[in-house]
Amino acid sequence: MKFCSECAHPVSLSIPDGDNRLRHVCPQCGTIHYQNPKMVVGSIPVWEVDGKAQVLLCTRAIEPRYGYWTLPAGFMENDETTAEAAARETVEEAGAHIELGNLFSLLNVQRVHQVHLFYLARLLDLDFAPGIESLEVRLFAEEAIPWEELAFPTVRTTLELFFADRAKLREGGSYGVHTGDITRPMAIPAD
Amino acid sequence: MKFCSECAHPVSLSIPDGDNRLRHVCPQCGTIHYQNPKMVVGSIPVWEVDGKAQVLLCTRAIEPRYGYWTLPAGFMENDETTAEAAARETVEEAGAHIELGNLFSLLNVQRVHQVHLFYLARLLDLDFAPGIESLEVRLFAEEAIPWEELAFPTVRTTLELFFADRAKLREGGSYGVHTGDITRPMAIPAD
Repeated sequence: MKFCSECAHPVSLSIPDGDNRLRHVCPQCGTIHYQNPKMVVGSIPVWEVDGKAQVLLCTRAIEPRYGYWTLPAGFMENDETTAEAAARETVEEAGAHIELGNLFSLLNVQRVHQVHLFYLARLLDLDFAPGIESLEVRLFAEEAIPWEELAFPTVRTTLELFFADRAKLREGGSYGVHTGDITRPMAIPAD
Repeated sequence: MKFCSECAHPVSLSIPDGDNRLRHVCPQCGTIHYQNPKMVVGSIPVWEVDGKAQVLLCTRAIEPRYGYWTLPAGFMENDETTAEAAARETVEEAGAHIELGNLFSLLNVQRVHQVHLFYLARLLDLDFAPGIESLEVRLFAEEAIPWEELAFPTVRTTLELFFADRAKLREGGSYGVHTGDITRPMAIPAD
């Protein structure tokens, strides 16, 4: 941020009275421009065959991580709830028809000032297709998940937690709500 | 937002290519200024006496809702995780020493573009005191909670869910993780 969005004067970095952090402050109109983390919200669309879960993944048609696999997810908008954001992204990126379930994971990605949320979702049919931000949409059983070609660490962690919970379901457990922090960037495989 | 924070040119409202929402766009440098919900994060600081929970509330020394009771909470900052934000706000607003527990509630407040998160917390001692944004800090047993003088609907809902879970704890249950949407503003009592 270089200029005040209220009066167009150049902003400066200073600690406002009663605060303890550097902020972009406008010396002309006094506006303090706070910057806060953004929420990225998506779903884990599940199709069950004989009690075995398949999960819908999309390849990204946009940067960052063009061509890598992801769960459908994107930035939450001002005019929606977290559940609405998860459902919207699933339609936009995977063209999928779902019944949204419970919150499953909340993962901090402090390094990029984001919090990622994933909801469980039940696929209602197999009529899905890539949206404008996806190249391909495909169902994967656990043993077929392209672990080395996943786009983001939150997708990897959420899938790991999901299949761990599925194993517990077989022993009478239930899905948990998982929270955690991502502290390292995704390893980029060497060419 | 009136001016571009990158080049100071007046922004206009338009739907960018490949998008479906009105955004503040700079016609000079092309920057799209996205606006996204903010996260407000806090804790439910609990002190147990003979198996009965008392909860720490603060009266707000700032607007909005000056003088009303709240759980310690505030806007999440870029340089922290959700758990760190909850712990920091509890220190800043209540001067309390806590051991942070699990995520307890995630509540959408779509009307003001916010998502509120509250974590369980165990008070380690009774050495607490109001910070700069609080007038008073006090422990309340369930029957003493000032329900009509609470600052925000997410505080009310979180306290209701907390005491409902406490009742279940006595029957061998455990705390849940609760998600929901706040659809109406806090009723302001008539003078």
